[in-house]
Amino acid sequence: MLSIGLLGCGRIGKVHAQSIAQLEGARVAAVADAFEEPARMLAAQTGAKLMTPLALIEDASVDAIVIGTPTDTHYDLIHAATASGKAIFCEKPVDMSADRIRDCIDAVRSAGIPFLTAFNRRFDPNFANVQSRIAAGEIGEVEIVTIQSRDPEPPPLDYIKSSGGLFRDMMIHDLDMARFLLGEEPVSVYAVGAALVDPEIGQSGDVDTAAVTLTTARGRICQITNSRRASYGYDQRIEIHGAKGMLRAENMLENTVEIATASGFTKAPAQHFFLERYQAAYRAEMAHFIDCVTRGRQPSPNIVDGLRAQILADAATHSRETGQVISVA
Amino acid sequence: MLSIGLLGCGRIGKVHAQSIAQLEGARVAAVADAFEEPARMLAAQTGAKLMTPLALIEDASVDAIVIGTPTDTHYDLIHAATASGKAIFCEKPVDMSADRIRDCIDAVRSAGIPFLTAFNRRFDPNFANVQSRIAAGEIGEVEIVTIQSRDPEPPPLDYIKSSGGLFRDMMIHDLDMARFLLGEEPVSVYAVGAALVDPEIGQSGDVDTAAVTLTTARGRICQITNSRRASYGYDQRIEIHGAKGMLRAENMLENTVEIATASGFTKAPAQHFFLERYQAAYRAEMAHFIDCVTRGRQPSPNIVDGLRAQILADAATHSRETGQVISVA
Amino acid sequence: MLSIGLLGCGRIGKVHAQSIAQLEGARVAAVADAFEEPARMLAAQTGAKLMTPLALIEDASVDAIVIGTPTDTHYDLIHAATASGKAIFCEKPVDMSADRIRDCIDAVRSAGIPFLTAFNRRFDPNFANVQSRIAAGEIGEVEIVTIQSRDPEPPPLDYIKSSGGLFRDMMIHDLDMARFLLGEEPVSVYAVGAALVDPEIGQSGDVDTAAVTLTTARGRICQITNSRRASYGYDQRIEIHGAKGMLRAENMLENTVEIATASGFTKAPAQHFFLERYQAAYRAEMAHFIDCVTRGRQPSPNIVDGLRAQILADAATHSRETGQVISVA
Amino acid sequence: MLSIGLLGCGRIGKVHAQSIAQLEGARVAAVADAFEEPARMLAAQTGAKLMTPLALIEDASVDAIVIGTPTDTHYDLIHAATASGKAIFCEKPVDMSADRIRDCIDAVRSAGIPFLTAFNRRFDPNFANVQSRIAAGEIGEVEIVTIQSRDPEPPPLDYIKSSGGLFRDMMIHDLDMARFLLGEEPVSVYAVGAALVDPEIGQSGDVDTAAVTLTTARGRICQITNSRRASYGYDQRIEIHGAKGMLRAENMLENTVEIATASGFTKAPAQHFFLERYQAAYRAEMAHFIDCVTRGRQPSPNIVDGLRAQILADAATHSRETGQVISVA
Repeated sequence: MLSIGLLGCGRIGKVHAQSIAQLEGARVAAVADAFEEPARMLAAQTGAKLMTPLALIEDASVDAIVIGTPTDTHYDLIHAATASGKAIFCEKPVDMSADRIRDCIDAVRSAGIPFLTAFNRRFDPNFANVQSRIAAGEIGEVEIVTIQSRDPEPPPLDYIKSSGGLFRDMMIHDLDMARFLLGEEPVSVYAVGAALVDPEIGQSGDVDTAAVTLTTARGRICQITNSRRASYGYDQRIEIHGAKGMLRAENMLENTVEIATASGFTKAPAQHFFLERYQAAYRAEMAHFIDCVTRGRQPSPNIVDGLRAQILADAATHSRETGQVISVA
Repeated sequence: MLSIGLLGCGRIGKVHAQSIAQLEGARVAAVADAFEEPARMLAAQTGAKLMTPLALIEDASVDAIVIGTPTDTHYDLIHAATASGKAIFCEKPVDMSADRIRDCIDAVRSAGIPFLTAFNRRFDPNFANVQSRIAAGEIGEVEIVTIQSRDPEPPPLDYIKSSGGLFRDMMIHDLDMARFLLGEEPVSVYAVGAALVDPEIGQSGDVDTAAVTLTTARGRICQITNSRRASYGYDQRIEIHGAKGMLRAENMLENTVEIATASGFTKAPAQHFFLERYQAAYRAEMAHFIDCVTRGRQPSPNIVDGLRAQILADAATHSRETGQVISVA
Repeated sequence: MLSIGLLGCGRIGKVHAQSIAQLEGARVAAVADAFEEPARMLAAQTGAKLMTPLALIEDASVDAIVIGTPTDTHYDLIHAATASGKAIFCEKPVDMSADRIRDCIDAVRSAGIPFLTAFNRRFDPNFANVQSRIAAGEIGEVEIVTIQSRDPEPPPLDYIKSSGGLFRDMMIHDLDMARFLLGEEPVSVYAVGAALVDPEIGQSGDVDTAAVTLTTARGRICQITNSRRASYGYDQRIEIHGAKGMLRAENMLENTVEIATASGFTKAPAQHFFLERYQAAYRAEMAHFIDCVTRGRQPSPNIVDGLRAQILADAATHSRETGQVISVA
Repeated sequence: MLSIGLLGCGRIGKVHAQSIAQLEGARVAAVADAFEEPARMLAAQTGAKLMTPLALIEDASVDAIVIGTPTDTHYDLIHAATASGKAIFCEKPVDMSADRIRDCIDAVRSAGIPFLTAFNRRFDPNFANVQSRIAAGEIGEVEIVTIQSRDPEPPPLDYIKSSGGLFRDMMIHDLDMARFLLGEEPVSVYAVGAALVDPEIGQSGDVDTAAVTLTTARGRICQITNSRRASYGYDQRIEIHGAKGMLRAENMLENTVEIATASGFTKAPAQHFFLERYQAAYRAEMAHFIDCVTRGRQPSPNIVDGLRAQILADAATHSRETGQVISVA
C-alpha cells in the first residue's frame, strides 16, 4: 500500500485525491496547502494527516508526493522531495524556465527517483488508443498530425497575465501530444496568433487564438490550433494521417442523444471542460504512477518530457513574437 | 438502341424520361397520357412522338413500354402490351386486386415478355449494397430486419381515400423490402395502426401511423414502422441483424455540413422526399430494365414479386382491421 | 448519513456497494449473503458488519436495505423488511409471479415504506435525457417507440432454464422502458420469437431472438427487438418518433477513435455489457434511492412499476406461446 | 439558348459537356481539340460542330467558350477569345505565371467580357452551404479555417514534373477555398512539405505531403494540409471556427451503409476522386456561368481570383523552398 502525500489541495489536488480513492494499492496519507481551509477539508474527507509541505515531504511514512501547487513553487518542492528520496508526481509545467527544469532533472537523476510529469492527456483512453495503434503500425509511418484544442471560455485576465502566455499555459499540452504522436522530435516551430476573443488579452501581450506548425527531421508535419473559446464545449481532437490510413479521436459528447427536427439532426455539445473530459485520464495517469512507483519503474512522460514540451512552448512563444521560424534541432 | 414508349407523363413519367436520357442504349420513342398538355410537353423535351396509349402499345417501332399511369389503368394496359409482345416496366402496385394481378401474371407468362415491377428502393445504392452484402454472408444468417419509413407529410385526403390504405399505398414498399432482405417468405403478418397525424385520415377509414411484424418459417423476424409525418425529412432506414453482425443504411442528408454551437452538433435534415432520395435508384432501376430487355432476360423484381407484396399488404390491412394475426403461408 | 444493509454480495451487490461508496449521505453498514466468502470480502472492503439476512433486516441501526439476492428469495425478504419498517431497494424482477408481487405491494403499502424497483436503465443518462425531453414536449405527442436490446452473448443454459424465459428475464427491462417512454399504459401485447442463436435454448422451451409490439389506448405503438447475441457489443438503443420530431439514444462505444483505411471508416464496438454500459445508471439509481429515503419520498420506479412490467412480460410470454394478441387493458 | 464552344475534349471537357446537357438554357454548339479522335467523339455525342480552336473562337454563332485545354495554351486562347468578345469559362490555373495572368486580366477588362475561373469546389453544395452560413453570421466572425485535402494516390511522375509543383497544382484549390472562407485576404504564407509518399517525387524537386499556414490582417488563421495519398478515398474537408461556433463539411462517403461486427462499426470509404465527389459542383459551376453570361453579369470566382490564388501558390512554393515566411500583403 503506497502512502501518498498531496501538496496542494485546490481543484486539481481534489481530482488526484479522488483518483487515489478509486484505485487499489495506494492511499492519501497526508495533505498540505498554503491555505488551511481547503487542506483541512481534504484531510477530513480522505482521513489523511494535515501537515506543512516540508514536514510532509520529510515524513518517513510518505512514499510519494503529488505536487499540485502553483508552478512557481515546483522548483523548491522538487528539490526538497528529491533530497528526501520521494517519488514525484508533478503537475505541468515543471517550471516556467527551461534552465530551472534542467536543474530539477539533475536533482531527480542524482536521487534516482521516479518522476511523472502530469501530461494527463496521454492517459485519455481515446488518445492512448490512437497512440498505441500508431505504434502497432495500423496506419503505417506517420505523415501529418493535426491537433485541435479549444477551451470553452477564456480564464480570468489575472490568470492569463501570470500564465506565461497561451503557448506555455495551454498549448503545452498539445505540444506534448505532438511529441507523443509524431514518433520523432520536432526540429522547427512556427507559430501565429492573435487576440480575437478578447482585446484585453491582446493588450496584456498574450493571444487567445493560435496555430503552430512543427516539422521533424524526416519531414513529418504537425499542425496545432488553439482557441480560448468554443461555444460547443471543450474541443479536444486529434487526427493522424499515415502511409496506410488515418486515425482520429473525436470529442466526447455530453450524451449519445440525437434529436431530429426540421432543423436537422442535433447531438449534444462536447463535455464542458477538462474535469469531465479527462476524468478517466486522471485516474489512468495516477494508476500508472502508482504502478511505476510500486514496481520501481520510471513513469512516462518523465521529467525530460516536461523539459522538451517547455522548450517547444518557448520556441512557439518566440516565433509568434518575432514572426520567424524557430529551429529547435 | 431500345425504343421505349412512356405511358403516363406525370411526375413519375418525367422521372423515367430523365433516367432514360442519361442512359446509353435506349431512347424515349413515344409518349402518351390521358391529358394532352403534359404529354405534349414531354414529347417536346424528349423529341418523342405524341400518341394515344393504344396506338403507342401497338406501334411496331416501340420495343418496350413504361406504365406510369393511375393504378386502375394498369390491368388493361398490361393486357394490351402483352398481346402486342412488348416488354413492360410497370409502376407499383401492379393492381389493387391480387386476383387481377394473377390474371396479369398469366398474360405475361403466356406472352413470355420481360416484366419489371418498379419497386425502386431495391435499386437504391445503399439498400442494394446492404442486400448484396447479406447475400455475400457478411453478417451470417439473417435474424431480425427492422425497416423505418416515414413520409415528410401526409398526401391530400382525396389521394388517401382512393389509395387502398396505408398498407397498400405506402408500406407495400417496405413489405417488398422485407422480402428482399429476409431471404425467405413471410408466413405471418400482424399489423397495428392509428390516425395520430390527422383525425380525418382516421375518419376516412385509414391510418397514418402503423407497424407490422412479419415472421418466416425459420423464425426470422421483420419489424416495420410507417408514419405519414416526419419533420426532419423523408425517413428511410433499414437495419439487419444477423448471426455475425449488423448492417444498416442510414438516411441520406441534404449535405454533409455540421454546425456546432451551445445547442450541440447539428447536421442537415434528411433529403426531403422520394424524388431526391431515390434519384439514383430510379436511374439504376431503368438501367436494369434496359439491360434485361436488351439481353432477353427477366428483370427482378418481376410481376410475381408484385403479387407477393400485394398479398402481404392485403394481409396487413386485414390484420389491422381485425386485430388478428394473419397467416400467409 | 443513511445506513444501508446489503442483502446479496454477488456481482450486482458489489456494484451497489461501489455506488454507495461514491455517493455522499450514505454508507454500507451491514452485508449478508447465503455464501460466506463473498460476504466476508465485501464486509472487509466496505468496513461493514457481516450479518445473517434476517439479523440485518431487524438491526435497528440499518435504515434501508438493498435486495440483490436470487429472485425466489425476494418475497420473504420484502415481507421481513416491511415488517421491520425498512426502506427497500429491490433488484428486478420483484418476483416471478404477478400475484406474489401484489402481496408484496400490500405489505409495502401497509408499512408505508419507500420501495424502489431497480430498473436501472431509467437512470442511464442518455435514456433519462430522452425521457425528460419527451416530457418537456420537444418532439410533441409520442407516436412510435422503437427499442433495440441485444446482449453480446447468451447466458449459460442453466441460467436460461431457471430464468422465466427471455421475456421475463431480458425483455422486462425493455417493457419497463416502453412504459417509461410511451406516456400511457400498453393495452395489447403481441410477441414472436425463435431460437436462432442456440437450438438448445429452443429445446429448453425458450427463445433467444424475439420481438414485441405494444399498443396503447390512444393508438401509440412500441416495437421491441431482443437478441441474445450481438458480435459488436451490448446493443442498447431507443428511438421515439413524435408529432414534432424524433429523439434517439445511440450505443455508447468503447472509445471515440475512428480509423480510415481502404475498408472505410471504423469506430470502436459498443461497450461490452451492462456493467460498463450502465455504470453511471447504477450510481444515479442509488443516488435517487438515497435521496428519496432521506427526504421521505417514494422512489420511481416503485413496486407497482415492478408489477406492471411483470404483467407485460407474462403477456408477451403467453402471446409467443399461443400466437395470439394478448389484451392487458 | 446560349451556344457554348468547348476547347479541349479530354476528361474535364467531357465533364463540362455533360453538365451543359443537363442544364436548360445552353447547348454545346462546337468542340475543338488538338487531338482529333476525342473531339470527333464528343461532337458525335453532343451533336456539336467539330472545329479548330481559332475557328471556334471566331465563330459568330458561339456565345461563350469553355477552356479545358492544357494550361500553357490558356494565355493565347484567352487573348483570342477576348478579341472575339466571347464570355470565358477557364479551367484553373489561368496560367502558371502571375504576370501573364495580369496580362489576361487587362485583356478581359478591356473586352468587358464575363470570365469565370473554374475553382469548382466553391460550387460544391457542402462547401457552398458552409460559406453562405458564415456570410449569414451563423458562427460570428471567422477565427480559424482548417482545410484538409488529400488525393487517393499520386499522379504519374511525368505529370508532376510539369505540374508546377504541389502548391500550384493541388493546393491552389485549397488556397482559393481559404480566400473564399476567410473573409479577408491572406497577408502571410508559411509552407512546409516533404516527399513522404514517393522519394522520386522528392528527387524531381517537388513534395507530396505539405502544410500551409495563412494569416490575415485582422489575425485570422488558416491551416491547410495536403497529401498525394489517402487509402480511404478522396479526403476533402473544411472546418471553420468562429466567435459563435464551428461549421464543418465532412467527406462524402460511397454510401450510407454501416456494418457492425466484433471489429466495430464500419462505414464506406470516401468517394474515390474528384469526378464523383464534385459531380454536383461541376454542374452548379456551369449553371452559374450560364446564368451570369445570360444575364450579363460577372461570374465569381473571376479572373482576379485566379490571380490571387496563383500568387498564394507561388508564395507557398517559395516559402517551402526557403524555409521563410512570405509576406503577400
